[in-house]
Amino acid sequence: MKKLPPPLVSLIGAGPGDPDLLTRKAYQQLLEADAVVYDRLVSPEILELIPAGVMRLFAGKSCAQKWMTQEEINETLVTLAKKGHRVVRLKGGDPFLFGRGSEEAMHLAEHHIPYEVIPGITSASGCAAYAGIPLTHRGLATRVQYFTGHLRSEQETEAIDWKGLADPDSTLVIYMGLGNSQMISDQLIQQGLAAETPAAIIENGTTPRQRTYVTTLKKLPADIESQQFKPPALIIVGKVVGCASALAPHAPAAQPESPPVQIKTRR
Amino acid sequence: MKKLPPPLVSLIGAGPGDPDLLTRKAYQQLLEADAVVYDRLVSPEILELIPAGVMRLFAGKSCAQKWMTQEEINETLVTLAKKGHRVVRLKGGDPFLFGRGSEEAMHLAEHHIPYEVIPGITSASGCAAYAGIPLTHRGLATRVQYFTGHLRSEQETEAIDWKGLADPDSTLVIYMGLGNSQMISDQLIQQGLAAETPAAIIENGTTPRQRTYVTTLKKLPADIESQQFKPPALIIVGKVVGCASALAPHAPAAQPESPPVQIKTRR
Repeated sequence: MKKLPPPLVSLIGAGPGDPDLLTRKAYQQLLEADAVVYDRLVSPEILELIPAGVMRLFAGKSCAQKWMTQEEINETLVTLAKKGHRVVRLKGGDPFLFGRGSEEAMHLAEHHIPYEVIPGITSASGCAAYAGIPLTHRGLATRVQYFTGHLRSEQETEAIDWKGLADPDSTLVIYMGLGNSQMISDQLIQQGLAAETPAAIIENGTTPRQRTYVTTLKKLPADIESQQFKPPALIIVGKVVGCASALAPHAPAAQPESPPVQIKTRR
Repeated sequence: MKKLPPPLVSLIGAGPGDPDLLTRKAYQQLLEADAVVYDRLVSPEILELIPAGVMRLFAGKSCAQKWMTQEEINETLVTLAKKGHRVVRLKGGDPFLFGRGSEEAMHLAEHHIPYEVIPGITSASGCAAYAGIPLTHRGLATRVQYFTGHLRSEQETEAIDWKGLADPDSTLVIYMGLGNSQMISDQLIQQGLAAETPAAIIENGTTPRQRTYVTTLKKLPADIESQQFKPPALIIVGKVVGCASALAPHAPAAQPESPPVQIKTRR
Protein backbone atom coordinates (compact mmCIF):
# COMPACT_ATOMS: atom_id res chain seq x y z
CA MET A 1 0.00 0.00 0.00
CA LYS A 2 1.26 3.43 -0.96
CA LYS A 3 2.39 5.44 2.01
CA LEU A 4 0.30 8.57 2.40
CA PRO A 5 2.28 11.79 2.72
CA PRO A 6 1.63 13.78 5.90
CA PRO A 7 -1.44 15.98 5.53
CA LEU A 8 -0.98 19.58 4.43
CA VAL A 9 -4.56 20.52 5.22
CA SER A 10 -6.50 19.50 8.34
CA LEU A 11 -10.26 19.92 8.06
CA ILE A 12 -11.05 20.27 11.74
CA GLY A 13 -14.32 20.21 13.60
CA ALA A 14 -13.97 22.90 16.26
CA GLY A 15 -17.02 21.68 18.13
CA PRO A 16 -19.84 23.85 19.41
CA GLY A 17 -17.89 26.61 21.18
CA ASP A 18 -16.21 25.59 24.46
CA PRO A 19 -12.47 25.46 23.70
CA ASP A 20 -12.11 22.55 26.13
CA LEU A 21 -14.32 20.53 23.78
CA LEU A 22 -11.67 20.60 21.06
CA THR A 23 -10.21 17.14 20.62
CA ARG A 24 -6.59 16.58 21.60
CA LYS A 25 -5.82 15.96 17.92
CA ALA A 26 -7.48 19.20 16.77
CA TYR A 27 -5.65 21.22 19.41
CA GLN A 28 -2.30 19.71 18.44
CA GLN A 29 -2.83 20.57 14.76
CA LEU A 30 -3.93 24.08 15.66
CA LEU A 31 -0.63 24.63 17.47
CA GLU A 32 1.34 23.47 14.42
CA ALA A 33 -0.54 25.45 11.77
CA ASP A 34 0.95 28.13 9.53
CA ALA A 35 -2.48 29.34 8.46
CA VAL A 36 -5.97 28.97 9.90
CA VAL A 37 -9.06 29.45 7.74
CA TYR A 38 -12.07 29.75 10.04
CA ASP A 39 -15.83 30.10 9.88
CA ARG A 40 -18.22 32.53 11.48
CA LEU A 41 -19.44 29.75 13.79
CA VAL A 42 -16.05 29.18 15.45
CA SER A 43 -16.23 30.76 18.91
CA PRO A 44 -13.95 33.63 19.98
CA GLU A 45 -12.70 31.42 22.84
CA ILE A 46 -11.38 28.90 20.31
CA LEU A 47 -9.80 31.57 18.11
CA GLU A 48 -7.84 32.72 21.17
CA LEU A 49 -6.03 29.37 21.11
CA ILE A 50 -4.42 30.13 17.73
CA PRO A 51 -0.78 30.99 18.42
CA ALA A 52 0.40 34.54 17.72
CA GLY A 53 1.96 35.00 14.30
CA VAL A 54 -0.18 32.39 12.59
CA MET A 55 -1.94 33.64 9.44
CA ARG A 56 -5.71 33.92 10.02
CA LEU A 57 -8.29 34.01 7.24
CA PHE A 58 -11.94 34.62 7.94
CA ALA A 59 -14.08 32.63 5.51
CA GLY A 60 -17.50 33.97 6.57
CA LYS A 61 -20.39 32.90 6.01
CA SER A 62 -23.68 34.18 7.33
CA CYS A 63 -26.94 33.99 5.45
CA ALA A 64 -26.92 37.70 4.72
CA GLN A 65 -23.26 38.39 4.10
CA LYS A 66 -20.64 36.19 2.54
CA TRP A 67 -16.96 36.91 2.84
CA MET A 68 -15.93 34.03 0.63
CA THR A 69 -18.02 31.75 -1.53
CA GLN A 70 -17.56 28.00 -1.08
CA GLU A 71 -15.53 27.97 -4.31
CA GLU A 72 -13.24 30.71 -2.97
CA ILE A 73 -12.72 28.77 0.26
CA ASN A 74 -11.87 25.61 -1.71
CA GLU A 75 -9.39 27.56 -3.84
CA THR A 76 -7.84 29.27 -0.82
CA LEU A 77 -7.10 25.91 0.83
CA VAL A 78 -5.43 24.60 -2.33
CA THR A 79 -3.42 27.78 -2.87
CA LEU A 80 -2.12 27.88 0.71
CA ALA A 81 -1.22 24.20 0.64
CA LYS A 82 0.60 24.54 -2.69
CA LYS A 83 2.72 27.28 -1.15
CA GLY A 84 3.80 24.68 1.38
CA HIS A 85 1.81 26.07 4.31
CA ARG A 86 0.48 23.75 6.97
CA VAL A 87 -3.21 24.69 6.80
CA VAL A 88 -5.93 24.24 9.39
CA ARG A 89 -9.48 24.66 8.16
CA LEU A 90 -11.51 25.26 11.32
CA LYS A 91 -15.25 24.66 11.11
CA GLY A 92 -17.92 24.91 13.82
CA GLY A 93 -19.28 21.56 15.03
CA ASP A 94 -18.29 18.55 12.91
CA PRO A 95 -17.05 19.04 9.33
CA PHE A 96 -19.04 16.12 7.93
CA LEU A 97 -22.40 17.07 9.50
CA PHE A 98 -24.00 20.09 7.78
CA GLY A 99 -20.51 21.57 7.49
CA ARG A 100 -19.88 21.22 3.75
CA GLY A 101 -16.54 19.72 4.76
CA SER A 102 -16.91 16.99 2.17
CA GLU A 103 -16.96 19.57 -0.63
CA GLU A 104 -13.64 20.94 0.59
CA ALA A 105 -12.28 17.42 0.98
CA MET A 106 -13.35 16.53 -2.57
CA HIS A 107 -11.67 19.63 -3.93
CA LEU A 108 -8.43 18.85 -2.09
CA ALA A 109 -8.53 15.24 -3.30
CA GLU A 110 -9.02 16.39 -6.89
CA HIS A 111 -5.96 18.61 -6.55
CA HIS A 112 -3.90 15.81 -4.96
CA ILE A 113 -3.38 17.80 -1.76
CA PRO A 114 -2.83 15.45 1.21
CA TYR A 115 -5.41 16.25 3.87
CA GLU A 116 -7.09 14.77 6.92
CA VAL A 117 -10.52 15.18 8.50
CA ILE A 118 -10.64 15.54 12.28
CA PRO A 119 -14.17 15.05 13.58
CA GLY A 120 -15.61 17.52 16.06
CA ILE A 121 -18.15 17.46 18.86
CA THR A 122 -21.43 18.09 17.08
CA SER A 123 -23.53 21.05 18.15
CA ALA A 124 -26.18 18.48 18.99
CA SER A 125 -23.97 16.57 21.46
CA GLY A 126 -22.53 19.74 22.96
CA CYS A 127 -25.83 21.51 23.44
CA ALA A 128 -27.45 18.33 24.74
CA ALA A 129 -24.80 17.83 27.42
CA TYR A 130 -24.67 21.49 28.49
CA ALA A 131 -28.45 21.94 28.53
CA GLY A 132 -29.22 18.63 30.23
CA ILE A 133 -31.23 17.27 27.31
CA PRO A 134 -30.31 13.71 26.32
CA LEU A 135 -30.70 12.96 22.61
CA THR A 136 -31.94 9.48 23.45
CA HIS A 137 -33.55 8.22 26.64
CA ARG A 138 -35.25 4.90 27.21
CA GLY A 139 -38.96 5.17 26.63
CA LEU A 140 -38.72 8.69 25.19
CA ALA A 141 -36.75 8.43 21.93
CA THR A 142 -35.62 5.52 19.79
CA ARG A 143 -34.46 7.64 16.86
CA VAL A 144 -32.64 10.93 16.43
CA GLN A 145 -33.15 12.96 13.26
CA TYR A 146 -30.85 15.83 12.30
CA PHE A 147 -31.91 18.26 9.61
CA THR A 148 -31.29 21.80 8.54
CA GLY A 149 -33.96 24.47 8.70
CA HIS A 150 -32.02 26.62 6.26
CA LEU A 151 -34.16 25.89 3.20
CA ARG A 152 -33.64 28.18 0.27
CA SER A 153 -36.70 27.46 -1.85
CA GLU A 154 -40.23 26.10 -1.83
CA GLN A 155 -38.86 23.14 -3.75
CA GLU A 156 -36.39 22.34 -0.96
CA THR A 157 -39.17 22.68 1.63
CA GLU A 158 -41.43 20.32 -0.30
CA ALA A 159 -38.65 17.77 -0.70
CA ILE A 160 -38.46 17.33 3.09
CA ASP A 161 -40.20 14.23 4.47
CA TRP A 162 -42.23 16.12 7.10
CA LYS A 163 -44.30 13.03 7.83
CA GLY A 164 -41.16 11.09 8.77
CA LEU A 165 -39.96 13.96 10.94
CA ALA A 166 -43.28 14.21 12.80
CA ASP A 167 -42.62 11.04 14.80
CA PRO A 168 -43.36 11.42 18.53
CA ASP A 169 -40.71 8.78 19.33
CA SER A 170 -37.97 10.75 17.55
CA THR A 171 -35.73 13.47 18.84
CA LEU A 172 -35.49 16.22 16.22
CA VAL A 173 -32.30 18.27 16.09
CA ILE A 174 -32.75 21.30 13.87
CA TYR A 175 -29.66 23.11 12.64
CA MET A 176 -30.06 26.72 11.45
CA GLY A 177 -33.76 26.64 12.18
CA LEU A 178 -34.42 30.11 13.63
CA GLY A 179 -35.42 31.79 10.37
CA ASN A 180 -37.90 29.13 9.29
CA SER A 181 -39.24 28.17 12.71
CA GLN A 182 -42.85 29.14 11.91
CA MET A 183 -42.90 26.97 8.81
CA ILE A 184 -41.15 24.07 10.60
CA SER A 185 -43.57 24.23 13.55
CA ASP A 186 -46.59 24.41 11.22
CA GLN A 187 -45.42 21.52 9.04
CA LEU A 188 -44.67 19.23 11.99
CA ILE A 189 -48.00 19.95 13.70
CA GLN A 190 -49.87 19.52 10.42
CA GLN A 191 -48.24 16.09 10.02
CA GLY A 192 -49.46 15.02 13.42
CA LEU A 193 -46.76 15.92 15.93
CA ALA A 194 -48.50 17.21 19.08
CA ALA A 195 -48.48 21.01 19.46
CA GLU A 196 -47.50 20.50 23.11
CA THR A 197 -44.35 18.51 22.26
CA PRO A 198 -41.51 20.07 24.30
CA ALA A 199 -39.01 22.12 22.33
CA ALA A 200 -35.78 23.83 23.38
CA ILE A 201 -33.72 26.59 21.83
CA ILE A 202 -30.03 26.60 22.77
CA GLU A 203 -28.21 29.76 21.71
CA ASN A 204 -24.39 29.96 21.85
CA GLY A 205 -24.33 26.43 23.23
CA THR A 206 -21.41 25.41 25.51
CA THR A 207 -20.04 28.99 25.69
CA PRO A 208 -20.36 31.34 28.69
CA ARG A 209 -23.12 33.05 26.66
CA GLN A 210 -25.27 29.90 26.40
CA ARG A 211 -28.98 30.59 26.72
CA THR A 212 -31.42 27.68 26.96
CA TYR A 213 -35.13 28.19 26.60
CA VAL A 214 -37.74 25.47 26.93
CA THR A 215 -41.13 25.87 25.31
CA THR A 216 -43.48 23.83 23.10
CA LEU A 217 -43.50 23.11 19.38
CA LYS A 218 -46.54 25.38 18.97
CA LYS A 219 -45.04 28.34 20.85
CA LEU A 220 -41.53 27.94 19.45
CA PRO A 221 -41.75 30.56 16.65
CA ALA A 222 -43.32 33.23 18.87
CA ASP A 223 -40.76 32.63 21.62
CA ILE A 224 -37.84 32.80 19.19
CA GLU A 225 -39.11 36.20 18.15
CA SER A 226 -40.05 37.59 21.56
CA GLN A 227 -36.83 36.36 23.19
CA GLN A 228 -34.77 37.57 20.22
CA PHE A 229 -32.76 34.44 19.67
CA LYS A 230 -29.85 34.85 17.24
CA PRO A 231 -27.58 32.33 15.48
CA PRO A 232 -25.74 30.17 16.36
CA ALA A 233 -28.72 28.38 17.86
CA LEU A 234 -29.87 24.79 17.86
CA ILE A 235 -33.47 23.65 18.25
CA ILE A 236 -34.29 20.31 19.86
CA VAL A 237 -37.85 18.98 19.68
CA GLY A 238 -39.10 15.87 21.40
CA LYS A 239 -40.07 14.26 24.67
CA VAL A 240 -36.42 14.20 25.81
CA VAL A 241 -36.58 17.99 26.25
CA GLY A 242 -38.70 17.26 29.31
CA CYS A 243 -35.55 15.92 31.02
CA ALA A 244 -34.06 19.43 31.13
CA SER A 245 -35.83 20.38 34.36
CA ALA A 246 -34.09 17.51 36.18
CA LEU A 247 -30.72 17.55 34.41
CA ALA A 248 -30.03 21.17 33.41
CA PRO A 249 -29.13 22.44 36.91
CA HIS A 250 -26.11 20.13 36.77
CA ALA A 251 -24.99 21.14 33.28
CA PRO A 252 -21.73 23.09 32.96
CA ALA A 253 -23.33 26.18 31.43
CA ALA A 254 -25.37 26.60 34.61
CA GLN A 255 -22.24 27.44 36.57
CA PRO A 256 -22.58 30.83 38.25
CA GLU A 257 -19.60 32.38 36.43
CA SER A 258 -21.84 32.23 33.33
CA PRO A 259 -25.06 34.19 32.88
CA PRO A 260 -27.87 32.10 34.38
CA VAL A 261 -29.43 29.53 32.13
CA GLN A 262 -32.92 30.62 31.28
CA ILE A 263 -35.06 27.54 31.65
CA LYS A 264 -38.71 28.36 31.26
CA THR A 265 -41.38 25.87 30.45
CA ARG A 266 -44.28 27.64 28.80
CA ARG A 267 -47.20 25.39 28.18
CA MET B 1 -28.37 31.60 41.78
CA LYS B 2 -27.02 28.81 43.97
CA LYS B 3 -23.38 28.10 43.34
CA LEU B 4 -22.95 24.53 42.08
CA PRO B 5 -20.36 22.50 43.94
CA PRO B 6 -17.56 21.08 41.78
CA PRO B 7 -18.63 17.83 40.13
CA LEU B 8 -17.79 14.57 41.87
CA VAL B 9 -18.75 12.46 38.87
CA SER B 10 -17.90 13.21 35.24
CA LEU B 11 -19.96 11.30 32.69
CA ILE B 12 -17.52 11.37 29.82
CA GLY B 13 -17.93 10.49 26.18
CA ALA B 14 -14.70 8.71 25.26
CA GLY B 15 -15.45 8.98 21.54
CA PRO B 16 -15.16 6.15 19.04
CA GLY B 17 -11.70 4.77 19.88
CA ASP B 18 -8.75 6.95 18.83
CA PRO B 19 -7.35 8.40 22.08
CA ASP B 20 -6.50 11.62 20.23
CA LEU B 21 -10.22 12.13 19.71
CA LEU B 22 -10.78 12.59 23.44
CA THR B 23 -11.67 16.19 24.16
CA ARG B 24 -9.21 18.31 26.11
CA LYS B 25 -11.78 18.46 28.92
CA ALA B 26 -12.26 14.69 29.05
CA TYR B 27 -8.51 14.09 29.10
CA GLN B 28 -8.01 16.57 31.93
CA GLN B 29 -10.70 14.89 34.05
CA LEU B 30 -9.25 11.47 33.32
CA LEU B 31 -5.90 12.61 34.73
CA GLU B 32 -7.57 13.84 37.93
CA ALA B 33 -9.77 10.82 38.60
CA ASP B 34 -9.58 8.58 41.66
CA ALA B 35 -11.78 5.95 40.02
CA VAL B 36 -12.73 5.18 36.42
CA VAL B 37 -15.83 3.12 35.61
CA TYR B 38 -15.64 2.10 31.95
CA ASP B 39 -17.65 0.31 29.30
CA ARG B 40 -16.81 -2.51 26.96
CA LEU B 41 -16.83 -0.06 24.05
CA VAL B 42 -13.99 2.09 25.40
CA SER B 43 -10.89 1.25 23.34
CA PRO B 44 -7.73 -0.24 24.91
CA GLU B 45 -5.79 2.78 23.58
CA ILE B 46 -7.95 5.08 25.71
CA LEU B 47 -7.69 2.88 28.80
CA GLU B 48 -3.91 3.19 28.52
CA LEU B 49 -4.27 6.91 29.28
CA ILE B 50 -5.61 6.21 32.77
CA PRO B 51 -2.79 7.00 35.20
CA ALA B 52 -1.29 4.14 37.21
CA GLY B 53 -2.80 3.68 40.66
CA VAL B 54 -6.27 4.87 39.66
CA MET B 55 -9.06 2.48 40.60
CA ARG B 56 -10.58 0.84 37.49
CA LEU B 57 -14.00 -0.76 37.35
CA PHE B 58 -15.22 -2.61 34.30
CA ALA B 59 -18.97 -2.12 33.89
CA GLY B 60 -19.50 -4.43 30.91
CA LYS B 61 -21.93 -4.71 28.95
CA SER B 62 -22.24 -6.91 25.90
CA CYS B 63 -25.48 -8.36 24.65
CA ALA B 64 -24.60 -11.85 25.83
CA GLN B 65 -22.78 -11.16 29.08
CA LYS B 66 -23.38 -8.46 31.61
CA TRP B 67 -20.86 -7.62 34.28
CA MET B 68 -23.06 -5.02 35.92
CA THR B 69 -26.69 -4.19 35.31
CA GLN B 70 -27.57 -0.55 34.66
CA GLU B 71 -28.88 -0.34 38.23
CA GLU B 72 -25.58 -1.66 39.60
CA ILE B 73 -23.65 0.90 37.54
CA ASN B 74 -25.89 3.70 38.84
CA GLU B 75 -25.36 2.52 42.42
CA THR B 76 -21.60 2.15 41.97
CA LEU B 77 -21.29 5.77 40.83
CA VAL B 78 -23.25 7.01 43.84
CA THR B 79 -21.32 4.84 46.29
CA LEU B 80 -17.92 5.92 44.96
CA ALA B 81 -18.92 9.60 44.98
CA LYS B 82 -20.28 9.36 48.53
CA LYS B 83 -16.91 8.02 49.64
CA GLY B 84 -15.46 11.27 48.34
CA HIS B 85 -13.82 9.79 45.25
CA ARG B 86 -13.47 11.87 42.10
CA VAL B 87 -15.22 9.52 39.65
CA VAL B 88 -14.94 9.36 35.88
CA ARG B 89 -17.61 7.35 34.10
CA LEU B 90 -16.13 6.62 30.69
CA LYS B 91 -18.54 5.66 27.92
CA GLY B 92 -17.87 4.91 24.26
CA GLY B 93 -19.03 7.62 21.83
CA ASP B 94 -21.25 10.31 23.36
CA PRO B 95 -23.04 9.68 26.68
CA PHE B 96 -26.32 11.27 25.53
CA LEU B 97 -26.58 9.39 22.20
CA PHE B 98 -27.55 5.73 22.69
CA GLY B 99 -25.30 5.69 25.74
CA ARG B 100 -27.87 5.55 28.56
CA GLY B 101 -25.90 8.41 30.10
CA SER B 102 -29.11 10.22 30.96
CA GLU B 103 -30.20 7.36 33.19
CA GLU B 104 -26.96 7.64 35.15
CA ALA B 105 -27.30 11.43 35.25
CA MET B 106 -30.88 11.14 36.56
CA HIS B 107 -29.77 8.74 39.27
CA LEU B 108 -26.94 11.06 40.36
CA ALA B 109 -29.32 14.05 40.37
CA GLU B 110 -31.81 12.14 42.53
CA HIS B 111 -29.02 11.40 45.02
CA HIS B 112 -27.83 15.02 44.99
CA ILE B 113 -24.39 14.04 43.70
CA PRO B 114 -22.80 16.93 41.78
CA TYR B 115 -21.90 15.71 38.30
CA GLU B 116 -21.13 16.96 34.81
CA VAL B 117 -21.63 15.54 31.32
CA ILE B 118 -18.74 15.89 28.88
CA PRO B 119 -19.88 15.20 25.32
CA GLY B 120 -17.84 12.87 23.12
CA ILE B 121 -17.16 12.47 19.43
CA THR B 122 -20.02 10.28 18.25
CA SER B 123 -19.19 7.00 16.56
CA ALA B 124 -21.02 8.43 13.56
CA SER B 125 -18.72 11.48 13.27
CA GLY B 126 -15.58 9.48 13.99
CA CYS B 127 -16.31 6.68 11.55
CA ALA B 128 -17.48 9.15 8.90
CA ALA B 129 -14.24 11.15 9.08
CA TYR B 130 -11.95 8.10 9.19
CA ALA B 131 -13.78 6.22 6.43
CA GLY B 132 -14.23 9.24 4.14
CA ILE B 133 -18.02 9.11 4.26
CA PRO B 134 -19.66 12.49 4.91
CA LEU B 135 -22.93 12.31 6.84
CA THR B 136 -24.33 15.13 4.73
CA HIS B 137 -23.31 16.25 1.24
CA ARG B 138 -25.12 18.69 -1.00
CA GLY B 139 -27.45 16.88 -3.34
CA LEU B 140 -27.01 13.53 -1.59
CA ALA B 141 -28.48 13.92 1.91
CA THR B 142 -30.60 16.56 3.58
CA ARG B 143 -31.33 14.57 6.72
CA VAL B 144 -29.38 12.23 8.97
CA GLN B 145 -31.19 9.61 11.01
CA TYR B 146 -29.56 7.74 13.88
CA PHE B 147 -31.19 4.64 15.26
CA THR B 148 -30.28 1.48 17.10
CA GLY B 149 -30.55 -1.94 15.51
CA HIS B 150 -30.48 -3.57 18.93
CA LEU B 151 -34.20 -4.32 19.16
CA ARG B 152 -35.22 -6.71 21.87
CA SER B 153 -38.73 -7.67 20.81
CA GLU B 154 -41.14 -7.84 17.91
CA GLN B 155 -43.00 -4.99 19.59
CA GLU B 156 -39.90 -2.78 19.48
CA THR B 157 -39.34 -3.69 15.83
CA GLU B 158 -42.93 -2.83 14.93
CA ALA B 159 -42.71 0.49 16.76
CA ILE B 160 -39.96 1.68 14.39
CA ASP B 161 -41.08 4.04 11.63
CA TRP B 162 -39.48 2.05 8.80
CA LYS B 163 -41.27 4.15 6.20
CA GLY B 164 -39.62 7.31 7.55
CA LEU B 165 -36.23 5.61 7.61
CA ALA B 166 -36.55 4.43 3.99
CA ASP B 167 -35.94 7.93 2.61
CA PRO B 168 -33.41 7.99 -0.26
CA ASP B 169 -32.41 11.56 0.70
CA SER B 170 -31.48 10.52 4.25
CA THR B 171 -28.24 9.18 5.61
CA LEU B 172 -28.98 6.30 8.00
CA VAL B 173 -26.57 5.68 10.83
CA ILE B 174 -27.28 2.36 12.50
CA TYR B 175 -25.82 1.70 15.93
CA MET B 176 -25.51 -1.91 17.09
CA GLY B 177 -27.01 -3.15 13.83
CA LEU B 178 -24.92 -6.27 13.08
CA GLY B 179 -27.22 -8.78 14.76
CA ASN B 180 -30.42 -7.56 13.09
CA SER B 181 -28.98 -6.57 9.71
CA GLN B 182 -31.15 -9.02 7.73
CA MET B 183 -34.33 -7.66 9.26
CA ILE B 184 -33.19 -4.04 8.85
CA SER B 185 -32.24 -4.57 5.21
CA ASP B 186 -35.53 -6.35 4.49
CA GLN B 187 -37.65 -3.69 6.18
CA LEU B 188 -35.95 -0.78 4.43
CA ILE B 189 -36.19 -2.42 0.99
CA GLN B 190 -39.81 -3.38 1.62
CA GLN B 191 -40.58 0.27 2.44
CA GLY B 192 -39.11 1.41 -0.85
CA LEU B 193 -35.42 2.13 -0.28
CA ALA B 194 -33.52 0.87 -3.33
CA ALA B 195 -31.75 -2.47 -2.85
CA GLU B 196 -28.68 -0.96 -4.56
CA THR B 197 -28.39 1.91 -2.04
CA PRO B 198 -24.75 2.00 -0.94
CA ALA B 199 -24.05 0.76 2.59
CA ALA B 200 -20.85 0.69 4.64
CA ILE B 201 -19.81 -1.29 7.68
CA ILE B 202 -17.11 0.31 9.82
CA GLU B 203 -15.68 -2.01 12.45
CA ASN B 204 -13.42 -0.68 15.24
CA GLY B 205 -13.75 2.79 13.75
CA THR B 206 -10.87 5.28 14.27
CA THR B 207 -8.61 2.63 15.84
CA PRO B 208 -5.61 0.96 14.13
CA ARG B 209 -7.94 -2.03 13.69
CA GLN B 210 -10.53 -0.11 11.66
CA ARG B 211 -12.06 -2.12 8.84
CA THR B 212 -14.32 -0.41 6.31
CA TYR B 213 -16.41 -2.39 3.88
CA VAL B 214 -18.63 -0.89 1.21
CA THR B 215 -21.53 -2.88 -0.18
CA THR B 216 -25.24 -2.38 -0.92
CA LEU B 217 -28.30 -2.43 1.31
CA LYS B 218 -29.35 -5.74 -0.26
CA LYS B 219 -26.00 -7.47 0.22
CA LEU B 220 -25.30 -5.99 3.66
CA PRO B 221 -26.48 -8.98 5.79
CA ALA B 222 -24.62 -11.58 3.70
CA ASP B 223 -21.44 -9.51 3.73
CA ILE B 224 -21.59 -8.98 7.49
CA GLU B 225 -21.72 -12.75 7.85
CA SER B 226 -19.15 -13.72 5.23
CA GLN B 227 -16.67 -11.04 6.34
CA GLN B 228 -17.30 -11.91 10.02
CA PHE B 229 -17.83 -8.38 11.29
CA LYS B 230 -17.91 -8.07 15.07
CA PRO B 231 -18.98 -5.23 17.40
CA PRO B 232 -18.17 -2.42 17.80
CA ALA B 233 -19.36 -1.68 14.29
CA LEU B 234 -21.38 1.09 12.74
CA ILE B 235 -23.49 0.78 9.60
CA ILE B 236 -24.03 3.78 7.32
CA VAL B 237 -26.63 3.55 4.55
CA GLY B 238 -27.22 6.19 1.91
CA LYS B 239 -25.95 7.89 -1.21
CA VAL B 240 -23.14 9.57 0.77
CA VAL B 241 -21.42 6.18 1.09
CA GLY B 242 -20.58 6.60 -2.59
CA CYS B 243 -18.11 9.35 -1.60
CA ALA B 244 -15.86 6.79 0.10
CA SER B 245 -14.03 5.86 -3.09
CA ALA B 246 -12.87 9.46 -3.50
CA LEU B 247 -12.34 10.41 0.14
CA ALA B 248 -11.30 7.23 1.98
CA PRO B 249 -7.72 7.09 0.65
CA HIS B 250 -7.08 10.34 2.55
CA ALA B 251 -8.66 9.20 5.81
CA PRO B 252 -6.40 8.67 8.85
CA ALA B 253 -7.23 4.99 9.22
CA ALA B 254 -5.76 4.40 5.76
CA GLN B 255 -2.28 5.26 7.04
CA PRO B 256 0.13 2.40 6.40
CA GLU B 257 0.96 1.78 10.08
CA SER B 258 -2.60 0.43 10.32
CA PRO B 259 -3.89 -2.67 8.56
CA PRO B 260 -5.09 -1.59 5.11
CA VAL B 261 -8.63 -0.30 4.88
CA GLN B 262 -10.71 -2.80 3.02
CA ILE B 263 -12.79 -0.78 0.62
CA LYS B 264 -14.72 -3.02 -1.71
CA THR B 265 -17.73 -1.97 -3.66
CA ARG B 266 -19.81 -5.01 -4.43
CA ARG B 267 -22.74 -4.27 -6.62
